[in-house]
Amino acid sequence: MVNSAPIFHKRHFLSCDWGTSSFRLRLIASASGKTIHAISETKGIKKFYKSWSSNRDSSKRLDYYLAFLGKQIEALEQSCSSELDRSIPVIISGMASSSIGMKELPYSSLPLSLVHPELNIHHVQPSERFSRDAYLVSGICSSNDVMRGEETELLGLASRLASKNGFYILAGTHSKHLRVKDNHLTAFKTYMTGELFDLIASKSILANSVDMRSDPVPGHGFKAGVKDAQQENLLHALFSIRAQDLLHNTGKPRNRDYLSGLLIGTELSEVVASEPARVILWGNSRLQRYYADALEVLGIDFIHPAIKGDEDITALGQRIIFNQITN
Amino acid sequence: MVNSAPIFHKRHFLSCDWGTSSFRLRLIASASGKTIHAISETKGIKKFYKSWSSNRDSSKRLDYYLAFLGKQIEALEQSCSSELDRSIPVIISGMASSSIGMKELPYSSLPLSLVHPELNIHHVQPSERFSRDAYLVSGICSSNDVMRGEETELLGLASRLASKNGFYILAGTHSKHLRVKDNHLTAFKTYMTGELFDLIASKSILANSVDMRSDPVPGHGFKAGVKDAQQENLLHALFSIRAQDLLHNTGKPRNRDYLSGLLIGTELSEVVASEPARVILWGNSRLQRYYADALEVLGIDFIHPAIKGDEDITALGQRIIFNQITN
Repeated sequence: MVNSAPIFHKRHFLSCDWGTSSFRLRLIASASGKTIHAISETKGIKKFYKSWSSNRDSSKRLDYYLAFLGKQIEALEQSCSSELDRSIPVIISGMASSSIGMKELPYSSLPLSLVHPELNIHHVQPSERFSRDAYLVSGICSSNDVMRGEETELLGLASRLASKNGFYILAGTHSKHLRVKDNHLTAFKTYMTGELFDLIASKSILANSVDMRSDPVPGHGFKAGVKDAQQENLLHALFSIRAQDLLHNTGKPRNRDYLSGLLIGTELSEVVASEPARVILWGNSRLQRYYADALEVLGIDFIHPAIKGDEDITALGQRIIFNQITN
Repeated sequence: MVNSAPIFHKRHFLSCDWGTSSFRLRLIASASGKTIHAISETKGIKKFYKSWSSNRDSSKRLDYYLAFLGKQIEALEQSCSSELDRSIPVIISGMASSSIGMKELPYSSLPLSLVHPELNIHHVQPSERFSRDAYLVSGICSSNDVMRGEETELLGLASRLASKNGFYILAGTHSKHLRVKDNHLTAFKTYMTGELFDLIASKSILANSVDMRSDPVPGHGFKAGVKDAQQENLLHALFSIRAQDLLHNTGKPRNRDYLSGLLIGTELSEVVASEPARVILWGNSRLQRYYADALEVLGIDFIHPAIKGDEDITALGQRIIFNQITN
């Protein structure tokens, strides 16, 4: 935790969401949580770490990352045509605190209060190299799982719910299932669903049997995959896509939908087994559509929190951290 | 089936096992089934199809494949320093009958007698282009699964067992589980186990967490993977490898063993559920070792057929087909 909180302009903060493959920077109104201006970059942590590695003699790691961040803040200033006061701090979450990030922070442990979260936060004081306060947020670990970024998303998502308790599904490349009880995150699990979908569809023997020129459609093929995942061994069901293609010419778009249903259905079979009382679903609009359809096939009710168009759940989560730091 | 059987030298036949990534040619003594001489090539069907595709104007597909086969027979003659009588036929099984093979043959259907197998066989008469009889063997299909090559392996393997009935596990890149009842193959399932192991270990986020410089070891890590596969959701258990690596520095060789155990254990969970009375295990010595260890962890008894060092199960299976053709 931060020991000495500096005094600064409380009306705004900068929200930096630095993930594995993307970089997002937003100017946030701290009272409402609304995004005033936003820019994004393809220089995710992975790509950025590579460029630091090849230039590592020229500057220290943290400085190298802060220099990039400084330039992005300038770009944000240009795009909104106004100078941002130096007292406006930047809050950084996601993979920026990982071993390939600006500075590796140890994971914080469960349970995590969603109202007064105690995360490990690294405070970088303003200096010549970077002119404002920066706060780097750690991830969370259980005894056998880890996350970086989703803990902040959860804070933001839950902040928009009257009752925070329930079972959260954050659909993504590495989906997360999170249990919240008495306003505390108490357990979570990560699933390699999205990554395996991409890998199998593009690199396995099934690549010849699935059409990846467009996104999966949550129709019959998708639903059949979700259902089969409840009965069939996954390693066999995967090969059946190839067999159906050879024997019955099932159609490569349909096979792609079935593969998507099979993997999402496998992930969600855990939810079926655990019968949570209240399921809260989140994800980008594309993924959320598949997960919603799969949950329906499986007879599981869920809610989808209403987040306004000018709100972002990472920024909403960072707002809680910002309020903790400034109060 | 073949309508007119030509008369030829019955003491020997040539056994060609043309798989996706390998080509094997053997001279077999038809009475004993023993291999007299063998050569192998890395030009599997996949690679060979590519080279035909880039030369397709120069010759017809079947001729192109037969020309290669002819050269390999010459190479076999050179390596055993004796001319092979033109009356000695060649029997070809594996992917050579697939859509990328020398000629695509429709799959034969279940059930398949292991004593008097009725497979689709394409007979190529001797001609100027290829001087001996060639017999191309089809694969087998069920309503939702396919194989090419393993049906011939099964014939050979079962020919060395006093009782052929039981549940066969043919461990491989795409493992097969086969049910044999009243001396007939009645059902089978394919599992993508081996291919997924290679894909996940080399191309996924886990590539950084597993050491692939040597083969998995069937020790503690492997056994833990087999056990966890019976309890855990596979998509989550996979990610736990990354988490354990980050949190507990479990060791990359151990993580590789665990990954192997997890995938083989997932495949074999189907065997646990179906409780077959008699399990017959086959596979190359490396794979067989893992499967044997996994079956032991799961408390499933199995037998391992005794095949002599100078015998090959594909050649033993082709011998049954050869005897059918010549009798």
